[in-house]
Amino acid sequence: MYMVDVRKEALKMSEQLGGKIEVNAKVSITNMEELSIAYTPGVAAVSSAIAENKADVYKYTTKRNLVAVVTDGSAVLGLGNIGPEAAIPVMEGKAALFKAFADVDAVPISLDTQDVEEIISHVKAIAPSFGGINLEDISAPRCFEIERRLKEELDIPVFHDDQHGTAIVVLAALYNALKVAGKELESAKIVINGGGSAGTAIVKKMLAAGAKNIVVCDIDGAISKDDPSLSEAHKELANLTNPNNIQGTLEEAIKEADVFVGVSAPGVLKKEWIATMNDKPIIFAMANPTPEIMPDEAKEGGAFIAATGRSDFPNQINNVLAFPGIFRGALDAHASDITEEMQLAAARGIASVIPEDELSVENIIPNAFNPEVAKVVADSVRNASK
Amino acid sequence: MYMVDVRKEALKMSEQLGGKIEVNAKVSITNMEELSIAYTPGVAAVSSAIAENKADVYKYTTKRNLVAVVTDGSAVLGLGNIGPEAAIPVMEGKAALFKAFADVDAVPISLDTQDVEEIISHVKAIAPSFGGINLEDISAPRCFEIERRLKEELDIPVFHDDQHGTAIVVLAALYNALKVAGKELESAKIVINGGGSAGTAIVKKMLAAGAKNIVVCDIDGAISKDDPSLSEAHKELANLTNPNNIQGTLEEAIKEADVFVGVSAPGVLKKEWIATMNDKPIIFAMANPTPEIMPDEAKEGGAFIAATGRSDFPNQINNVLAFPGIFRGALDAHASDITEEMQLAAARGIASVIPEDELSVENIIPNAFNPEVAKVVADSVRNASK
Repeated sequence: MYMVDVRKEALKMSEQLGGKIEVNAKVSITNMEELSIAYTPGVAAVSSAIAENKADVYKYTTKRNLVAVVTDGSAVLGLGNIGPEAAIPVMEGKAALFKAFADVDAVPISLDTQDVEEIISHVKAIAPSFGGINLEDISAPRCFEIERRLKEELDIPVFHDDQHGTAIVVLAALYNALKVAGKELESAKIVINGGGSAGTAIVKKMLAAGAKNIVVCDIDGAISKDDPSLSEAHKELANLTNPNNIQGTLEEAIKEADVFVGVSAPGVLKKEWIATMNDKPIIFAMANPTPEIMPDEAKEGGAFIAATGRSDFPNQINNVLAFPGIFRGALDAHASDITEEMQLAAARGIASVIPEDELSVENIIPNAFNPEVAKVVADSVRNASK
Repeated sequence: MYMVDVRKEALKMSEQLGGKIEVNAKVSITNMEELSIAYTPGVAAVSSAIAENKADVYKYTTKRNLVAVVTDGSAVLGLGNIGPEAAIPVMEGKAALFKAFADVDAVPISLDTQDVEEIISHVKAIAPSFGGINLEDISAPRCFEIERRLKEELDIPVFHDDQHGTAIVVLAALYNALKVAGKELESAKIVINGGGSAGTAIVKKMLAAGAKNIVVCDIDGAISKDDPSLSEAHKELANLTNPNNIQGTLEEAIKEADVFVGVSAPGVLKKEWIATMNDKPIIFAMANPTPEIMPDEAKEGGAFIAATGRSDFPNQINNVLAFPGIFRGALDAHASDITEEMQLAAARGIASVIPEDELSVENIIPNAFNPEVAKVVADSVRNASK
């Protein structure tokens, strides 16, 4: 997949550099006068100005561009609950991406607790320094409560990327895929395989965008209101989805669907089932690194459009298309929240980067390194914040 | 004092730059392969390595060089309790100095609480990300308990610069001043004017270095065991100092003293009193920006050596001589604490930067921009940590 062994290279690079980020002074401090401006006594004037008018903290300090990438190490990548120290390389990586893609300054904050109330309390306590909080790799269902409470109780944006980032990029890809297929979101039948936090976030984002007919499957098949054994989380999903009360396995549920979205496990989608879908089936198979069905197999099965999380196939659904520009826009707007409206605007922004006449079955989502993406997303988010 | 209005320049610079620090990626992320090394999937190998061996967090991550500059905004410069937001410019300034003087990556953490137990809890919670904690501008007596507890309960260095940084630089200056005057620390009579946190830290550092005859004065005069009205903090000082049980005002206490150290208020030392001191009197007048006595006036009064916190006179006692190198050394040693021994080594290191044959009444302490200082301090601290 890559020319080098990326795991080996990652270890080598991390050791050589001693981590992936550094904190630099933007001011020159090479003589006494510069020291007196950057620090005492000059700094007293800046502190006094903020003491008189707290809002000036955005005018004079790093708060206006500083994001905490907060984790408790409970759900790190596919590695699970590996704890706060082992999560740091991921948080640093995220911080490096924030800077590289959108000039956002981000700091890894790995918390030494997995207690919901404690996490909320610590994040609130450090909030004065930061212009935004990016929650990362916190396991479900704790991540839902933590994000909900922090959004309510803090006056800076709080965003759990694992939920919303993925959902926003999926929605962006879906907008363009439906356009290429000549279908409408409102009338499309969408089957989402995987009822965890990513699946739930995708459902909610699609509903907010106007989708009406979503069926969620988990390992036991379609989630339906008629099932008395549902967990609380799945009961909520059942109430939001499956308007026709479809029962049975994924094989049953996918019949006559327009869209399949997999956030589940390798190889669970059989190519024979794609033939039972509606005309021009759209397949987003996002299990990582091995998708629910490989794109070439999906095409053999009749898929009109196939997308995955992988960079070695067309149509890569990559979170990096969303979070840098989203925070860039929210910070520039001094927004107190990243609302659903701002998130939907981000999805439309990502989709809009590909000109209509360049859309095709192999080009529904911009490349991760398209430099337009973060700018367009930031503009979309900033405009939607008003 | 400066060619420009540093307060005006500080405001202008802070607004133009939007704060004084930024977080940069040390890795290049310009194509898919680089992204795969800096982030997923490569980063999983780094996280897995740390999950298997927690100590590898120092090998592979920013923790090995990252310091949190933590405040609650309760005692910011001379501005007092101005709160966490208004404290940020000072914390950022400190972070900029850490980088400029010793290549330490530092992040401002302004806490939204002034409760001792809460501060301890929050700092402990964020500790996994950091290689050290620099406490800053937290008011006494809360700062003592916070530092003591964090030193006990954390396995990374914790250092309250306002106490120990100042004390270390004063001690360094005193080593050289006594050498120039041909006196010994053990037999010198030292009067310290100011019984707050800086004065207390200076007393303890000097005692640890071998001083035996220290008298502390506050606004009511010499602090003595015989005074029943002493606060708890001053009772502790009284038990450590004033072996001859001197009573009376500063004017009385300073008679036959070898050294005066002021951490008090402008103009409180009268030049006539200097004539009552021992031969070759040493005057450290560190009230900021206006010292207890101006150096030229002290000299008129008979001072042999005069030092202040000001950069426009010889012998500037400046914290920046200590904290960058101290953290550099502690981080390089992966030290779990900055012990008294390491702090005394730092003071000796600073003093040693001036060659014996260059020591003079106007050259007892290196210039803040002497590039040797941070290196020598770091080496001294690292060696003392073993």
